[in-house]
Amino acid sequence: MKKPNLFYAQSGGVTAVINASACGVIETARAHKDKIGKVYAGLNGIVGALNEELIDTSKESASTIAALRSTPAGAFGSCRYKLKSYAENQREYERLMDVFQAHNIRYFLYNGGGDSQDTANKISQISLDKGFPITCIGVPKTVDNDLPITDNCPGFGSVAKYVAVSIREAGLDVASMCDSSTKVFVMEVMGRHAGWIAGAAGLASEEEGDAPHIILFPEIAFNKEKFLRKVKSSVKKYGYCAIVVSEGAQNPDGSFLADAGGADAFGHVQLGGVAPFVANMIKAELGYKYHWAVADYLQRSARHIASATDVEQAYAVGQAAVEFALKGKNAVMPIIIRGKGKKYSWRIGEAKLSAVANVEKMMPRHYISKDGFHITDEARAYFTPLIQGEDYPPYRNGIPQYARLKRQLETKKLKAWKAS
Amino acid sequence: MKKPNLFYAQSGGVTAVINASACGVIETARAHKDKIGKVYAGLNGIVGALNEELIDTSKESASTIAALRSTPAGAFGSCRYKLKSYAENQREYERLMDVFQAHNIRYFLYNGGGDSQDTANKISQISLDKGFPITCIGVPKTVDNDLPITDNCPGFGSVAKYVAVSIREAGLDVASMCDSSTKVFVMEVMGRHAGWIAGAAGLASEEEGDAPHIILFPEIAFNKEKFLRKVKSSVKKYGYCAIVVSEGAQNPDGSFLADAGGADAFGHVQLGGVAPFVANMIKAELGYKYHWAVADYLQRSARHIASATDVEQAYAVGQAAVEFALKGKNAVMPIIIRGKGKKYSWRIGEAKLSAVANVEKMMPRHYISKDGFHITDEARAYFTPLIQGEDYPPYRNGIPQYARLKRQLETKKLKAWKAS
Repeated sequence: MKKPNLFYAQSGGVTAVINASACGVIETARAHKDKIGKVYAGLNGIVGALNEELIDTSKESASTIAALRSTPAGAFGSCRYKLKSYAENQREYERLMDVFQAHNIRYFLYNGGGDSQDTANKISQISLDKGFPITCIGVPKTVDNDLPITDNCPGFGSVAKYVAVSIREAGLDVASMCDSSTKVFVMEVMGRHAGWIAGAAGLASEEEGDAPHIILFPEIAFNKEKFLRKVKSSVKKYGYCAIVVSEGAQNPDGSFLADAGGADAFGHVQLGGVAPFVANMIKAELGYKYHWAVADYLQRSARHIASATDVEQAYAVGQAAVEFALKGKNAVMPIIIRGKGKKYSWRIGEAKLSAVANVEKMMPRHYISKDGFHITDEARAYFTPLIQGEDYPPYRNGIPQYARLKRQLETKKLKAWKAS
Repeated sequence: MKKPNLFYAQSGGVTAVINASACGVIETARAHKDKIGKVYAGLNGIVGALNEELIDTSKESASTIAALRSTPAGAFGSCRYKLKSYAENQREYERLMDVFQAHNIRYFLYNGGGDSQDTANKISQISLDKGFPITCIGVPKTVDNDLPITDNCPGFGSVAKYVAVSIREAGLDVASMCDSSTKVFVMEVMGRHAGWIAGAAGLASEEEGDAPHIILFPEIAFNKEKFLRKVKSSVKKYGYCAIVVSEGAQNPDGSFLADAGGADAFGHVQLGGVAPFVANMIKAELGYKYHWAVADYLQRSARHIASATDVEQAYAVGQAAVEFALKGKNAVMPIIIRGKGKKYSWRIGEAKLSAVANVEKMMPRHYISKDGFHITDEARAYFTPLIQGEDYPPYRNGIPQYARLKRQLETKKLKAWKAS
């Protein structure tokens, strides 16, 4: 019997370290050539499996694969594509089985968030029913840090480091100028449902008066009066006010803050995000000169300032996923377990995909200060280890040199797929 | 006679390396204790001199001063404050003379852009007339890179590196997702009058298809049809389009691009910048899903990704300014002179303040590609050396540790100053 092949796919929004997980998967599979044939990567994630567009990673040199460890974003392409339920779209699952069978794929490693783990779990079940059992292992990934069970998600530590570093630096800038110029600075960060990223920015404030002075979380309903009072008191006390706002910051009625200014009575579209909205509100109510920034993709692709801890963990979950598969585990995902000691330590554990799928972990209330505008010491203790260490990529000509893959596709064996 | 003191002030928008210049000034002055008494730094720039708020830098330890080399923003405070002409506001100049005389200040080092060099030049002339001659030396600084005569401005190399790194990283992010999600990414960068910063982002595109695909310069009048055609062809060719837009991008009539959407017919204020404006235009005309980022202060304070060349040059101009003063030079500014060889080299030269003051250096047309949307090889040759080398700050707890100064003020000797 020919050695079974492995299929790896990246899913959903990418991160600074998802390729480090890919590196862990491929290097570990290569170290077990006796048991695993080829590692195929889906071109643009699971869509690549449907289209039978399988990148043959054996065509990539060892040094290229090693370089994935320090390359941000999804080197094989990712996608926003959620498989429907089997009942709703049986055809898609049949197609996946056909492709896997045609290419002797017996291992499916899915690198994504909660949705993706749900898909991996379904495929595992269906493959059993079909009599072509596929070992399905999840590989956790999300900047949002909202997966349950695992202590944290690979991808989060690096975006956390980026936002903490950025608000520290921009805060110093505003502090320099506030006597005669800008008094308020608003930085918008990602996290539409959970405030983990916004919270991590709070690490920048280590001493009284340090930026950020205010954090707006999705978990805390926005109170305009209280907020403006806090802005005013910060400007009085420190000369300026640095604010971090989560893109998911919400009004008491649950609508997004930015949507309030989303369209005026005449239906004109609001072009800005929540940062310009908040900045403008302050200008209108308190008159302070402001600046604002929206980091957007810059934050989740910022491999140049990645957390070394995050990179290690991202690699480790990729490695563990292959090891799990070889040990005969199925429908599980490697997770990060935090050691109990005072000094931070972590090890790899496992969680059932069924327990991970479609569950969102929010910031606990006790991680947020009483007034709702900052993080607590408990939150600091949680966040701090995750941004430890710098893992700088190699540079050439002054800019990071990231892996450039051949992405050579395996010859197709099936008829073309048409999405219904 | 008591040794003369030196007054140093930071002026205008701050940079990632202006404190490296301060470090060069103070360390060099400390190395010449036989000739220079104290180094005073203006609290919030020249305003500190008017208010007689003089930070006594002798109270800062050698290690704190050394740490300034890797600290972004203006550690002593900067300001947006331009002295009027002597004829218009004689009182201010008299006050400066009084403060300088009261504190035996015979050297005035002004760290800023074109406006500041104009001020320094005036003070030099007036002090001669007043019979209390002050040696005035400019220290160049500006992220905008728009000072004449000098090959480049300290502060620019680091922001250039930041924007090139950022668009490379965000470009990879978009490339990963474009098959099923975001197809257009717009990053707004600084440079209201000159396109140097936007141009430097072009360094990220080293191979065919690399981001950025389009750069919008202030120097090139925006042509909507041509632009949209280019966006469309980029999406067709590469699957996505990464755009860098200068905040100063202009319409053919000279108005700012973002101002076009500045207020609608009902006078509602446009909250966003030029990035959301451009992104929205693309969505409306071509229908592509977009994301946008506005780096704002993040770019000019990003000491974590500073150019080592920039840091060295910033220190060197600070050092040279003190050396110039000690050599009896006056009303001059150290500049960077590029060597003629193929391999990049630089040395310090000097320029008269009168020649530097109030002159803006724009991107030359031959640095911009024929179609107006990218940079030429000549521009690359100019930019590349300026972003060379990484000069990482020290980290503690996962975030950069920047200098924290005591900023102890010298005892006042004069009556309080009231701005008129």
